[in-house]
Amino acid sequence: MCGIFAYLNHLTPKTRKEVLDFLVNGLKRLEYRGYDSAGVAVDSADGNNMAIIKKSGKVQALEDEINSLASSLAFDTIMDCHVGIAHTRWATHGVPNAQNAHPQRSDTENTFCLVHNGIITNYKDIKLFLAKKGYTFESDTDTEIIAKLMLHIYKSHPQNTFQEIVEQCIQQLEGAFAVCFKSKLFPGECVASRRGSPLLVAIKTKTRLATDHIPILYGKDPAEAKAKTDFRPHGGPATNETLTAASLMPRTPSTAEFQPMEEDKQVEYFFASDASAVIEHTNRVIFLEDDDVAAVKDGTLTIHRIRRNLDDPHAREITTIKMEIQQIMKGNYNSFMQKEIFEQPESVVNTMRGRMNFEGQSIILGGIKDYIPEIKRCRRLMLIACGTSYHSAVATRQLLEELTELPVMVELASDFLDRNTPVFRDDVCFFISQSGETADTLMALRYCKNRGALIVGVTNTVGSSICRESHCGVHINAGPEIGVASTKAYTSQFISLVMFGLVMSEDRISLQQRRKDIIQGLRQLEEQIREVLKLDSKVQELAKDLYKHKSLLIMGRGYNFATCLEGALKVKELTYMHSEGIMAGELKHGPLALVDETMPVIMIVTRDPVYNKCMNALQQVTAREGRPILICEKGDKETQEFASSILEVPHSVDCLQGILTVIPLQLLSYHIAVLRGCNVDCPRNLAKSVTVE
Amino acid sequence: MCGIFAYLNHLTPKTRKEVLDFLVNGLKRLEYRGYDSAGVAVDSADGNNMAIIKKSGKVQALEDEINSLASSLAFDTIMDCHVGIAHTRWATHGVPNAQNAHPQRSDTENTFCLVHNGIITNYKDIKLFLAKKGYTFESDTDTEIIAKLMLHIYKSHPQNTFQEIVEQCIQQLEGAFAVCFKSKLFPGECVASRRGSPLLVAIKTKTRLATDHIPILYGKDPAEAKAKTDFRPHGGPATNETLTAASLMPRTPSTAEFQPMEEDKQVEYFFASDASAVIEHTNRVIFLEDDDVAAVKDGTLTIHRIRRNLDDPHAREITTIKMEIQQIMKGNYNSFMQKEIFEQPESVVNTMRGRMNFEGQSIILGGIKDYIPEIKRCRRLMLIACGTSYHSAVATRQLLEELTELPVMVELASDFLDRNTPVFRDDVCFFISQSGETADTLMALRYCKNRGALIVGVTNTVGSSICRESHCGVHINAGPEIGVASTKAYTSQFISLVMFGLVMSEDRISLQQRRKDIIQGLRQLEEQIREVLKLDSKVQELAKDLYKHKSLLIMGRGYNFATCLEGALKVKELTYMHSEGIMAGELKHGPLALVDETMPVIMIVTRDPVYNKCMNALQQVTAREGRPILICEKGDKETQEFASSILEVPHSVDCLQGILTVIPLQLLSYHIAVLRGCNVDCPRNLAKSVTVE
Repeated sequence: MCGIFAYLNHLTPKTRKEVLDFLVNGLKRLEYRGYDSAGVAVDSADGNNMAIIKKSGKVQALEDEINSLASSLAFDTIMDCHVGIAHTRWATHGVPNAQNAHPQRSDTENTFCLVHNGIITNYKDIKLFLAKKGYTFESDTDTEIIAKLMLHIYKSHPQNTFQEIVEQCIQQLEGAFAVCFKSKLFPGECVASRRGSPLLVAIKTKTRLATDHIPILYGKDPAEAKAKTDFRPHGGPATNETLTAASLMPRTPSTAEFQPMEEDKQVEYFFASDASAVIEHTNRVIFLEDDDVAAVKDGTLTIHRIRRNLDDPHAREITTIKMEIQQIMKGNYNSFMQKEIFEQPESVVNTMRGRMNFEGQSIILGGIKDYIPEIKRCRRLMLIACGTSYHSAVATRQLLEELTELPVMVELASDFLDRNTPVFRDDVCFFISQSGETADTLMALRYCKNRGALIVGVTNTVGSSICRESHCGVHINAGPEIGVASTKAYTSQFISLVMFGLVMSEDRISLQQRRKDIIQGLRQLEEQIREVLKLDSKVQELAKDLYKHKSLLIMGRGYNFATCLEGALKVKELTYMHSEGIMAGELKHGPLALVDETMPVIMIVTRDPVYNKCMNALQQVTAREGRPILICEKGDKETQEFASSILEVPHSVDCLQGILTVIPLQLLSYHIAVLRGCNVDCPRNLAKSVTVE
Repeated sequence: MCGIFAYLNHLTPKTRKEVLDFLVNGLKRLEYRGYDSAGVAVDSADGNNMAIIKKSGKVQALEDEINSLASSLAFDTIMDCHVGIAHTRWATHGVPNAQNAHPQRSDTENTFCLVHNGIITNYKDIKLFLAKKGYTFESDTDTEIIAKLMLHIYKSHPQNTFQEIVEQCIQQLEGAFAVCFKSKLFPGECVASRRGSPLLVAIKTKTRLATDHIPILYGKDPAEAKAKTDFRPHGGPATNETLTAASLMPRTPSTAEFQPMEEDKQVEYFFASDASAVIEHTNRVIFLEDDDVAAVKDGTLTIHRIRRNLDDPHAREITTIKMEIQQIMKGNYNSFMQKEIFEQPESVVNTMRGRMNFEGQSIILGGIKDYIPEIKRCRRLMLIACGTSYHSAVATRQLLEELTELPVMVELASDFLDRNTPVFRDDVCFFISQSGETADTLMALRYCKNRGALIVGVTNTVGSSICRESHCGVHINAGPEIGVASTKAYTSQFISLVMFGLVMSEDRISLQQRRKDIIQGLRQLEEQIREVLKLDSKVQELAKDLYKHKSLLIMGRGYNFATCLEGALKVKELTYMHSEGIMAGELKHGPLALVDETMPVIMIVTRDPVYNKCMNALQQVTAREGRPILICEKGDKETQEFASSILEVPHSVDCLQGILTVIPLQLLSYHIAVLRGCNVDCPRNLAKSVTVE
């Protein structure tokens, strides 16, 4: 849930000020991953130690702190080779303050220091072990034990390389982590690793790269390795048989390393939690896999793994990222979230682009088409996700039941895991996650994969863990989403699942008219969303009536129930107002007791098959003096009679109406948040990509 | 959702005061079904018209009104034969006031008047039709159109009997109803019918009844009937072949009627929504079926149906109800709900009585045992319910998945119907409802039955619709539950489903130790619940801290998640405080934003397989300055360190822990409601048995 960033310049002179600017800017790009405290570690001005600067609060507070230290940091000193690490935190263990911020260190000498994203689940055991050895702790974090453990391993094996110490260290860790180390003992070297949390290495050179693969250096056979504590001679090249992989590199056939071309030894490396932090510098990145250890020494990158399994690849690919820098900037909007709400006319089109053929009434989902026959034979579909992504599953469940004629289960990933839910070989499991890194969803994926189910990923992030570990999948193509509260990803997930349903029902004669209606509905969405967005100022007025209330109920049923859940979640996340999505059918089983003339109620009533039932619920609310705000269809005067205020959305086919009804609630949560003075893009206590359980 | 009561005395002299007392007392017993207004209709003092007395508010208000009219009502007049009808309402159409209260009438002459429980879904169409004919309306209810329609039919066919008019009238109605009619034209006669809503007839005679069956009088064959508008000659006995059924009655072989024995013509009839309203008078009742028309004329009861289907029975049975009068009284408690919470040590034992053999480690569920082989072969189990009953399904889902190794789906009945969920012949569907009359659950039952699924009922009410329409089932034996907020029914439903799981796993070798642990856990429940109930005064103290707050969050996961949902529902229903049950695994996907030092949070953390994950959530809450109240296990000091207050419950096996953790929340909702001055047994806007959609 934190953001990691590191910068290493080799034979590329930079002032200390430049280095610090790189680090701080990298953190700003990653701030959506957490923003309760931040820190950096660079070499100290005298070159004999490190300067670790940490600050509670957002990255801006860290930047101010750094600027106030300008003189002692010797901003203008030029450094040819240097390693700086940086971190923006989202607290899991220990309250947000400077002491608990990263980098965390091994001792007052800063022998080792690191930044970490994740949770070490066995930290108590390790802490106890280290405390018995005499180590003392200065923070409440789980991270600090890693730094102390590094020092302890070093003291036991002082001849080991930096990378070897990291390898031995991570073997002791349980839980999820991405880590990046700097050491006073190994100047100019940086070592990083991951398990469960995302991490990439980006490479910037002045000249063309010599290769697009980095071969993996495997440790010796485990049995052999056990015999030796130090399984590769210090400094020398790795020698085991997997090194034949090095032949993939045309320019440096004899070593399994990445080196910039001979004619120019200048090189810069970036380690980051995701690509948005590096894209302004370079578009050449390597996504690390679980238990990879990436080390840079003398300007040379190597990737190590302790042992090799049968199917493991020989090398990691250097990917060229196509993200554009302006895609991750705010533009003319006040916040990323506002921008992303207003991007939806385009993002829904991007989701359908190249897939929907409106003339031919046909749909192709390239990432999944070869698996459709297998999916059609399955026992049931399971849609597994967390938060907003879960709501996209709720929203499309009914349509998928109709179009596939299969049982469809929707599951919260955390609950699914808690329950040890039975999964069978003939199940098809969908995993939906904007980031593709959501920890619970990813673990549920692995759980189902182990039981032989077919795994389908639905993510917004190419190269993410869920992408890579799925058998097939749909990329929703909504573009980067920076606002912590998900908006455009939701509508794109929704459409992706609808398209899947259409593909599944292609040859069902009885459903042809239904499919035509839905395809026609999809075609109109762009224009209809533009129309809904025109409600913005009206929604803002409504927000002025609502923002001082303590609670808000959002009611609906059928296809619109997911909109209630998602709208209530948006209001919760952004405004800290207690809002709840309520199934209108359950009103009389309890929630109706909350309704009186003071409780704000929003109801969604559209002309779909549950219209009459919704009207019953509406009348129950008005009979209790409730004054509901109605989200209803344009021109539906009969329904509007019962409302105190109305928000009209265009009519769409029933199963797509939820896309149009959720947008006014996205806008409402935004405006209430602004009126309450909340930070829209960085709601308190939350982070975008939840990469811990 | 309303309560209907009618009283007919034939050749049994009563003063008008006695009759009114019977009616008002009957309503008081039914008050849990609705209490926003009430009314009665009796013959007027001059005998030429009716006196209709209606009052907004609880039955007490009606009683006060009646007493204030003592002189004009001529309390002391003795009436030999008389029909009185009465009603306590829960508003669905039109606000609660005297105008909208029942009885509703056909005209100012009171030619016909009626009481009604249910919703007429086509009332708008009928109203329009009648308005065109010149009828005018004085209320906003759907019920009034029934009275007007009766008059209209009578005017078209003045020769028809009262029962025939009712028969023709109900054929025009859509929706759910139980109705009871009185007419100025037919003094001493009462006609009642039902479709969807419950209704029974109770009989009181001084001598033994002549029969225990009432034969059903069927109309002519539909084709024949169509040819004649009036399908049975006025006044004469029904003549078609189905009358052979009358031979079932030994004492009156030649007529298909119920008549008291010749030697004593004195008889009293009661019509009521359920047996608790009549049990103080008689224990001999007939549960009417959908579309039965029951008529009493000249002291004789007949039951009519328009047409006969192949499998229809010949007669309705007269059942002897074993409910005892003290079971439905409050005892020493301040409210039924409090009484029912404290009854749980006994009610859980009653649920297991005669089923669990603790010595032999065996379980027999008599109502279901013949179907176990079929259930074991099924494709999946579906648990379908509303409100609290739904939570009992959530609570036991994981255990059923474990013990049956089948996929288990839990569904809200309303959403299940909205979605037209695919159901297959090899599905087994459970329908859980305290009253056995919950409209959505009952309709979902019929939906699944039509699709060939095996239907299993789990109810607390013998003779209820769900009982009668299931293939097999479990009666939870919790005893009558009067408090609108369900408490002891929840724990008994929970245990019933656990017992079902145990039956299903009887011959699985690998599960024997697990089954032993659970059986041992069940055995300890009585004592453990007694221990939990000792928390009462401590919970009351906590309630004093909480009752002024606007919101309350209740968090947990795994086996305890259902406790969070159920606890939050209790608080909502009783205290009108906005409370929400939150899956702790979803905290970081939104709800955590609500947490700060002012938001009251209750967390449930017990030593089960998700303990570590719960502790992570707990630390996230405390890191945001949250001051959680913990429900945890006795003596678990390590966990308790993080709490601002604790409620300790004894340790049970993981899957039963939810029974012990929900009780403190039942108590909490009770005490908060008392402190807030809410009516615990009759929360605003709610009614116990939700017999409309």
